[in-house]
Amino acid sequence: MQRGIHVTTSMGIHTYLHNCRNRVETALRTVFPSDWLIPDKLREAMDYSLLAGGKRIRPILVLAAAEAVTGEEETSEKALDFACAVEMIHTYSLVHDDLPAMDNDDYRRGRPTNHKVFGDAMAILAGDGLLTHAFHIVTQAAKTGVPAARVLAVIEELSRFAGLTGMVGGQVDDMLGEQGITSLEQLERIHLHKTSDLIAFSLRAGGHAAEADERQLEALGLFGRNVGLAFQIQDDILDLTGSADKLGKPVKSDERQEKVTYPFLLGLDESRRRVSQLTKEAGDALLQAGLASPQRLLEIADYLINRDH
Amino acid sequence: MQRGIHVTTSMGIHTYLHNCRNRVETALRTVFPSDWLIPDKLREAMDYSLLAGGKRIRPILVLAAAEAVTGEEETSEKALDFACAVEMIHTYSLVHDDLPAMDNDDYRRGRPTNHKVFGDAMAILAGDGLLTHAFHIVTQAAKTGVPAARVLAVIEELSRFAGLTGMVGGQVDDMLGEQGITSLEQLERIHLHKTSDLIAFSLRAGGHAAEADERQLEALGLFGRNVGLAFQIQDDILDLTGSADKLGKPVKSDERQEKVTYPFLLGLDESRRRVSQLTKEAGDALLQAGLASPQRLLEIADYLINRDH
Repeated sequence: MQRGIHVTTSMGIHTYLHNCRNRVETALRTVFPSDWLIPDKLREAMDYSLLAGGKRIRPILVLAAAEAVTGEEETSEKALDFACAVEMIHTYSLVHDDLPAMDNDDYRRGRPTNHKVFGDAMAILAGDGLLTHAFHIVTQAAKTGVPAARVLAVIEELSRFAGLTGMVGGQVDDMLGEQGITSLEQLERIHLHKTSDLIAFSLRAGGHAAEADERQLEALGLFGRNVGLAFQIQDDILDLTGSADKLGKPVKSDERQEKVTYPFLLGLDESRRRVSQLTKEAGDALLQAGLASPQRLLEIADYLINRDH
Repeated sequence: MQRGIHVTTSMGIHTYLHNCRNRVETALRTVFPSDWLIPDKLREAMDYSLLAGGKRIRPILVLAAAEAVTGEEETSEKALDFACAVEMIHTYSLVHDDLPAMDNDDYRRGRPTNHKVFGDAMAILAGDGLLTHAFHIVTQAAKTGVPAARVLAVIEELSRFAGLTGMVGGQVDDMLGEQGITSLEQLERIHLHKTSDLIAFSLRAGGHAAEADERQLEALGLFGRNVGLAFQIQDDILDLTGSADKLGKPVKSDERQEKVTYPFLLGLDESRRRVSQLTKEAGDALLQAGLASPQRLLEIADYLINRDH
């Protein structure tokens, strides 16, 4: 990473990300089997949000984590079901979040949100369907050579990281705390659960696909947690300092909405220092875990955190 | 059953149901581990709907199915996690169904619905939490002696029967068809997916806990499907012919709401004939599957279908 760790791999990071993204896009197009009798409108509503593009950061991290463990690109094939599942979970959370009863957002990635197109009831059901079907997709990994005990571990972790003590819990904390966040601990807890938990899960899921040992899984989880948090802080920083052009959204929107952010609580310099520290810890954990090839994950973290958009 | 099959067992059906219900109630009180850091308000909202009583038909069927396979009451202990999971799924579907964007119901079982007490956003998240955590509870069965492959099978089936081609799909069909159901096939498809699928799942899940063979699983699933459908038709019949006193709700509410029902499409006599036929088929399937002790399941079906309330 720019801050401390020097990284070199043969394929450029942009090519690598592009290739992974293509594999994920292709796989996502077949998560709803064509011979299943799914109501057309439901299929359409789910596809609308699931195939809306985006960076696909979480599923890419699943694939990259699997590859990091063995050093073989083929290993990531076994992780493809987990990659799709995590993107389905991420997508359902956005669809439900955007509902009028929640954040009431009309646009996402420049397109009308799911409920604006399909109505609130269908958006609720499309979210429920994506969430339920994500678990189905995880089970399919057992048919591509991932041992049953590993698939079960991934299901247990997914239900935890995406559930009551993870993403759903984080959403509730965020909602209840909207007016009253006063401490860094509070803000960090919300970010950890709302965002980092699913990223930590992604890394661990890739590890399970590659049959990583406990030490490797822990390092991958810590890496995901820290990178997720650093990414979030960087987001807050960019909102204050970035250019509207590069961000694709108005800058200082957090300030205008009186959102409590890291720079608001810590100041810009200390926020930047915190990004560095989290990134360094993430890298150190990874390099000490005995992974066959941790470089690519370090590159992705670098790409995510040291971005200007 | 009253129609055709004569049933005798030592413990009365009411005592049996009472005992099962108590076991389920006790188990449901511990599905959210006390040492998990779940936001208080989320825990409260989930408990409000999950511990609101009710007949607990689905979880009781899970336990009874496990016992039917081996003839041993102890076997049903292994099925307790699956029983809790199915009730959590059923509860989440009610919480989301009652939302203003869906059926907009203010009361359920004589109490204000979840969103009336906790608000729409929390009701959405409580539903998401219950759904996600149901899968967690299923995984716990692996720790009580159910083989990993069986637990995986249950997860795969739960995601299907509760998902896109099951309950969620049925909800969508119901919602889209509200004004335009004209055929029996259409009505039956909605009931099958909206209601029967989760009941069929319950029976199969109990079977998996008892390590039933494929033939037994199929019979249990068919039994659940038919009993679920017969139950639904009986519900429509009672709405037309029952007394408000016994039903605990106004009679002929379907007619007033211009709901398309079995009696509306088939007439009362033909609807009653259909209940008989489905019940007989359900019993026959069960008796031919080589279960150690199918009687209790037949009794439960009899109790559910030949009720007057």
